[in-house]
Amino acid sequence: MNLLLLRDEDFVGADRVLLRGRRLQHLLQVHQATVGDSLKVGQLGGMMGRGELLALSAEHAELSVQLDQPPPAKLPLTLLLAMPRPKMFRRILQHCATLGVAEIILLNSFRVEKSFWQTPFLQPEQIEENLLLGLEQARDTILPQVQIEKRFKPFVEDRLPALIADRLALVAHPGDYPACPRAVTQPTALAIGPEGGWIPYEVDKLVEAGFQSVQLGARILRVETAVTALIGRLF
Amino acid sequence: MNLLLLRDEDFVGADRVLLRGRRLQHLLQVHQATVGDSLKVGQLGGMMGRGELLALSAEHAELSVQLDQPPPAKLPLTLLLAMPRPKMFRRILQHCATLGVAEIILLNSFRVEKSFWQTPFLQPEQIEENLLLGLEQARDTILPQVQIEKRFKPFVEDRLPALIADRLALVAHPGDYPACPRAVTQPTALAIGPEGGWIPYEVDKLVEAGFQSVQLGARILRVETAVTALIGRLF
Repeated sequence: MNLLLLRDEDFVGADRVLLRGRRLQHLLQVHQATVGDSLKVGQLGGMMGRGELLALSAEHAELSVQLDQPPPAKLPLTLLLAMPRPKMFRRILQHCATLGVAEIILLNSFRVEKSFWQTPFLQPEQIEENLLLGLEQARDTILPQVQIEKRFKPFVEDRLPALIADRLALVAHPGDYPACPRAVTQPTALAIGPEGGWIPYEVDKLVEAGFQSVQLGARILRVETAVTALIGRLF
Repeated sequence: MNLLLLRDEDFVGADRVLLRGRRLQHLLQVHQATVGDSLKVGQLGGMMGRGELLALSAEHAELSVQLDQPPPAKLPLTLLLAMPRPKMFRRILQHCATLGVAEIILLNSFRVEKSFWQTPFLQPEQIEENLLLGLEQARDTILPQVQIEKRFKPFVEDRLPALIADRLALVAHPGDYPACPRAVTQPTALAIGPEGGWIPYEVDKLVEAGFQSVQLGARILRVETAVTALIGRLF
């Protein structure tokens, strides 16, 4: 953890926090922190800065904090992602939070196994936990927004066109399409299919909604690899 | 598995193969293949093409194969990687094979924990197994070369300068450096440090050997994320 993330309820004064639980354990065991240490801290949803460790015991850590720096800018990216396999989903949430994705929309697709929607990793507190791990890694305080859309057709037909109205909208799909662009600065939506890819009907619907098909070469990437490689290329 | 990889010892005739073990189980259980099916196949280290399933039983699968297409080109990339944490190492091998990295050099660094060098994932057969998973995913037949260098200083001083003589050589490091380049076509060497980064002495030695420092923005990426995002950006 490269940033100690503070929640509103940790504050016991304007510049004073008390920590227990996972973050306390991490301070004790991984950081092997001692009183007087200065640590990078950030307020979830707010500013970042430094905290000085005033007291440390097995029960709690007390810090005085000074929050005077904004978090890094988010990427202007909405990721439209066919719901991935649960174990990979967890890692993708972490990668996305670390890389600065602003918004993730989890979408159904013909090739998404129904069981994927049953995973406990979709519980709001589990989504948040994995996003927090990504923010702590990157040193960021702003959670990506996550939206769940289990019905492909009504979402893509009725709501997606408005959502991408002022965006570059790209669907990654193997085939004879233009190469995925690079060094994009405008607001972007990127649709990434499931293992095995979108079916042709789904690509057609996304194109009708305003997406352009782009390809990333002959190699077939796992979803996890594709998400990170495409973000690395796009921004 | 998007490609059925064949080894020389699988061949029982010029265009005839017999498969047992993992690949047979995969055909039976995941592909639910039946006699007459046509599958994408490739000869490890050689050409790719199609195989027709002639016979299938619990003991073996027999295929007639036609190999007439070259595998996709490798990226002109030598990745110099501080030995990662074992679980992440396994996935990085798979990502690298999938993305087409030509060569991986595993290097020691001050922040590499000594225990990382003890992992069974460094056994040659385990390295190969993880690279094969990546090749099967991408549809490629050529294994990346993997080299293990447990002594940083003699390798970087004595052998690295010759190795990067005709290459663009980049070391990814946070700081006030030029941004990592994009859309590179020339042979490239990319050095990626451990969690926590190279220490200043190591960056100095890499720069002395001919590397240029480049940065990737304010966010601190996990090694696994950095490898894939940087490859996506560079090529």
